[in-house]
Amino acid sequence: MAKKPELDDYRVPFFDAGKKPKPFDLSAVDPSSKPFSSGTKDIDRERLAAIGAQLDDLQEKLHAQRRQRVLLVLQGMDTSGKDGTVRAVFHDVDPLGLRIVPFRAPSEREAAHDFLWRVHAQAPMAGEFAIFNRSHYEDVLVPRVLKSIDADECARRYRHIREFESLLADSGTTIVKCFLHISKDEQRERLQARIDDPTKHWKFDVSDLEARKQWDDYQAAYADALGATSTEYAPWYIIPGNSKTHRNVMVAELLLRTMQDMKLEFPPAKESLKGVKVE
Amino acid sequence: MAKKPELDDYRVPFFDAGKKPKPFDLSAVDPSSKPFSSGTKDIDRERLAAIGAQLDDLQEKLHAQRRQRVLLVLQGMDTSGKDGTVRAVFHDVDPLGLRIVPFRAPSEREAAHDFLWRVHAQAPMAGEFAIFNRSHYEDVLVPRVLKSIDADECARRYRHIREFESLLADSGTTIVKCFLHISKDEQRERLQARIDDPTKHWKFDVSDLEARKQWDDYQAAYADALGATSTEYAPWYIIPGNSKTHRNVMVAELLLRTMQDMKLEFPPAKESLKGVKVE
Repeated sequence: MAKKPELDDYRVPFFDAGKKPKPFDLSAVDPSSKPFSSGTKDIDRERLAAIGAQLDDLQEKLHAQRRQRVLLVLQGMDTSGKDGTVRAVFHDVDPLGLRIVPFRAPSEREAAHDFLWRVHAQAPMAGEFAIFNRSHYEDVLVPRVLKSIDADECARRYRHIREFESLLADSGTTIVKCFLHISKDEQRERLQARIDDPTKHWKFDVSDLEARKQWDDYQAAYADALGATSTEYAPWYIIPGNSKTHRNVMVAELLLRTMQDMKLEFPPAKESLKGVKVE
Repeated sequence: MAKKPELDDYRVPFFDAGKKPKPFDLSAVDPSSKPFSSGTKDIDRERLAAIGAQLDDLQEKLHAQRRQRVLLVLQGMDTSGKDGTVRAVFHDVDPLGLRIVPFRAPSEREAAHDFLWRVHAQAPMAGEFAIFNRSHYEDVLVPRVLKSIDADECARRYRHIREFESLLADSGTTIVKCFLHISKDEQRERLQARIDDPTKHWKFDVSDLEARKQWDDYQAAYADALGATSTEYAPWYIIPGNSKTHRNVMVAELLLRTMQDMKLEFPPAKESLKGVKVE
């Protein structure tokens, strides 16, 4: 009998400061596999809805407590489903409790600072659940592929990222990072679908096709970044994402476990309110 | 036969610069009335879901277009349902397209600026739908009731608010402002329910009871503010809110009409993508 898959089987091994950082072998995970699927899309969607309700409950406690924070980092190639994941996984979570932060190419002012400056400014505060739709990881992917930073600078950035995430974690932030893993064929189909539907053209930039030509370079850059920045306090998970339903369920399961582990509870009742009658 | 209610019947008459500003008579609107209810809660909820899907579609076009912006301002007494409105009305709207901005008491740094400084910083950008959960209106309500500003300063602030909102409107922002109107009895019940449920104590501050003691002063402050700041480019609507279902449906109807009037469309197809085959 096949072993039931565990979320931790999809966690990128932790960076070990004593050893040379090892790129994570993305080819070891099949993007079209569905380890957390229960068989049919309908059952998966029911499961997703059930988790959504639990996440909503946990988020309310997070918010009520105003002490801990959660940061979800979503990364992946174009069309890997970052937007779709947010939409599906958080459908039943109170929008008041979420802060979704999209990172685009840095503005002139942002680029005039260190690469973590604009990211730090968006870190979740006590009680917040923040979602980074793209993130500081773009700054060890894009410039690396475009060769505007060399290997030494890249290594320094990995270190700065680890240290920055350690600061957030030490200040009460639970960090989960998901790499939405799709195949090159799947990307072709999704890009083609956008091209074939004029109402989707706004999502499309000709530069997406340029980035696709550098698919292998981006995969290599991801492999390095994942291996160098998966840590106990900010682990990376590989989410097989050719199936959108599977991707959504797996991210939801991961967040559910993560938030359950936080032991969130409502703050204690206020003694001063006991027996108070409103006039 | 009774006239079918119109949204505009609930719009606060526009401020007329040529005349002395007139407080809006809140007693003219019954908070327990349900003018936009269709009879049963079930039908209203179906209607709400149907509008939610339309709002989601409109929001996608707003986002795709990246030109216009929407600002929804929610104000009301404690427990009037600002949070609940956001949750219910936007349940089916993509969270990626919303930015919800809660305004609390100003920080020391914020208070060291003019009262619109922190508000301006949160104005929606092109393509965004921003929701102000409380807003700059707190600064003509709280200090007025606490008598930390006098009538002249208050009048100046109304003017600055009108001019600020005019700036936003001229820059492509559609502004809708809702006053969630509940009765003093309804507030008592809702506050009492929070006190009686220890898991709701975190929502409760003893200062809420102080503010309740000044109910009449706050209503008067609202009456003045509504009358002085309802304009063609940033109208105020009174939302009877004792019934949560009615409140949600009415706000949803208002937003639907508002966004339909914006004539949102997807941007034109990109000629450069015509016939492109992804490799």
